[in-house]
Amino acid sequence: MPPDKKITKIAVDAMGGDYAPSEVIKGVVAAAKEGGVEIILVGPLPVTQAELAKHTISDLPISCIDAAEFIKEGEPPALALRQKRNASIIVATKLVKNGEADAVISAGPTGAVVASALMILGTAEGIDRPVVGGPFFGFSPNTIVMDAGGNVDCKPYHLLNFAIVGCVYAQKLLNISNPTVALLSVGAEEGKGNELVKESYPLFQKSNLNFIGNVEGNDIVTGRANVIVCDGFVGNVLVKFCEGLGITIAQWIKTNLSGKLSNSEITKLSDDLLALTNGADISGGGPLLGVNGVAIVMHGRSQASQFTTAIAQTKTIVESGLVNSLNSELSKNRRQPDNGKD
Amino acid sequence: MPPDKKITKIAVDAMGGDYAPSEVIKGVVAAAKEGGVEIILVGPLPVTQAELAKHTISDLPISCIDAAEFIKEGEPPALALRQKRNASIIVATKLVKNGEADAVISAGPTGAVVASALMILGTAEGIDRPVVGGPFFGFSPNTIVMDAGGNVDCKPYHLLNFAIVGCVYAQKLLNISNPTVALLSVGAEEGKGNELVKESYPLFQKSNLNFIGNVEGNDIVTGRANVIVCDGFVGNVLVKFCEGLGITIAQWIKTNLSGKLSNSEITKLSDDLLALTNGADISGGGPLLGVNGVAIVMHGRSQASQFTTAIAQTKTIVESGLVNSLNSELSKNRRQPDNGKD
Repeated sequence: MPPDKKITKIAVDAMGGDYAPSEVIKGVVAAAKEGGVEIILVGPLPVTQAELAKHTISDLPISCIDAAEFIKEGEPPALALRQKRNASIIVATKLVKNGEADAVISAGPTGAVVASALMILGTAEGIDRPVVGGPFFGFSPNTIVMDAGGNVDCKPYHLLNFAIVGCVYAQKLLNISNPTVALLSVGAEEGKGNELVKESYPLFQKSNLNFIGNVEGNDIVTGRANVIVCDGFVGNVLVKFCEGLGITIAQWIKTNLSGKLSNSEITKLSDDLLALTNGADISGGGPLLGVNGVAIVMHGRSQASQFTTAIAQTKTIVESGLVNSLNSELSKNRRQPDNGKD
Repeated sequence: MPPDKKITKIAVDAMGGDYAPSEVIKGVVAAAKEGGVEIILVGPLPVTQAELAKHTISDLPISCIDAAEFIKEGEPPALALRQKRNASIIVATKLVKNGEADAVISAGPTGAVVASALMILGTAEGIDRPVVGGPFFGFSPNTIVMDAGGNVDCKPYHLLNFAIVGCVYAQKLLNISNPTVALLSVGAEEGKGNELVKESYPLFQKSNLNFIGNVEGNDIVTGRANVIVCDGFVGNVLVKFCEGLGITIAQWIKTNLSGKLSNSEITKLSDDLLALTNGADISGGGPLLGVNGVAIVMHGRSQASQFTTAIAQTKTIVESGLVNSLNSELSKNRRQPDNGKD
């Protein structure tokens, strides 16, 4: 069987997200129809089966596995995971651990998805905390911002790992052979920045990364580096700001062009801008990088089309061998973050 | 003489900025022609006089004060200020201290402008470090982001002061009587955020601010709060990202509308978007808030029109009595940040 015909098995948390389970299952059914994937829906059987019954799914490779509980937005993740051993996210992640699935997808609370991945799959060598990121800004499609959400209060050691993860991402998913790496800061010159950036700079310099120094906020837009590294607090605020801005400007374009172009032209322009600024909304989410397995965290507000897109993206990620490459690269760089001073 | 006819005396660092002194002086001459201000140009006399000689300035209220030296981009500010006692930014700031000018404007290195203001003017009561900020995003003109650049590695105490400063700014310059205040974070719920946000939250709750909780990056765009408080690292990255994004989208609009609308319509749309996303570029900069005097920090890349705009804005700021109001509000709130635990 040629590689592009390989079937990827994906465990989907049927109960994760603001519109679960209906939108999750609608998206899953559409993805299954596209082929190349086998879906394992995880959630309370009465719920998933009732929801599936609303669709025509005969012959589609969708199965259900029971998980009596699920974790709601706002529950403290660690406590919830301890109390709800049969939560859908736990059961789904275990399928990856046991080799019964190639990947897990959830739009449930990010903290719970991350905690499950950490607890069940564990992290890749040299990684403390998994990373979220990717080319979030469509105008600079070859620029990845890492970390874009999972990790706050980072140390230089974490930023170096984000950079390594970003480089593997760029190589495997964007086909960039020798990605450039930069630290996001408040000034381009060495010495500008907060303590984290100042302490990280020499660590990046002596790494074997293709480090080009500091870049500023506007450099994300111009794509000055392929991998732009920052604390997850900054990355998360940036991604959300960009999304909000895209929505506002798209609406502004509509208002300003009304009556000057045809409605279809205006809608196309507005939709194109949304796609360029709301990348994560289009794809629905991104991989949790640095865990020993493919785990995809989606926006809580994801709807059916985002689940369908995310399933296709997950298939690509599984086939790229991203996780194995990450493990290999992180183990090569292990000594630098560990020793810190050499 | 009615208040709007009052003459504001402004000391301008003739040597500050990428295009100094020519663009500085061009902007100053234009501002002087508009009236209501008296300009004191500070820089090496041979330079300023030679540059002024290129313009028709007879009768314009522009005088020159000698300052033999100036501080270049990249010089360590503290060291440079010690070594260059006659630097233009020092001489100009001293004019404010001595009451010979109502305000100082410089597009020189931000670090040097801030250090001069700190050293010579001192900070307002309860403020350690001056703040930069304002309504940087034209789509939400009643939303101020503080701090947008000056201060990194902040403590909760600093964030509270930024909030107080932001409220006075909103009251005096935006005419918002009871501004809402929020902490910028990675989640709207209490408890979401980095250590700084988590520690600041209770401090904000027990203050007499109109605190509405955490907001996220997209809430800047929708104007969910009047004053959105963050560490200056985050604020700076956001402002620059917004500027870069505005430039890129404006160009994208031009490309996509080419041939579909008249050139003048396309240019207007593009220019309008730039104005909405590059507020600081239009005005050229903003006041350094929390120092005992009006000091305006401008972008290094400012050109003549930005200096002209900044001079007009500075006149407004001086006339608003912002500094006195800040001192008064900060002194009222003094006990909260000082005690920390009550």
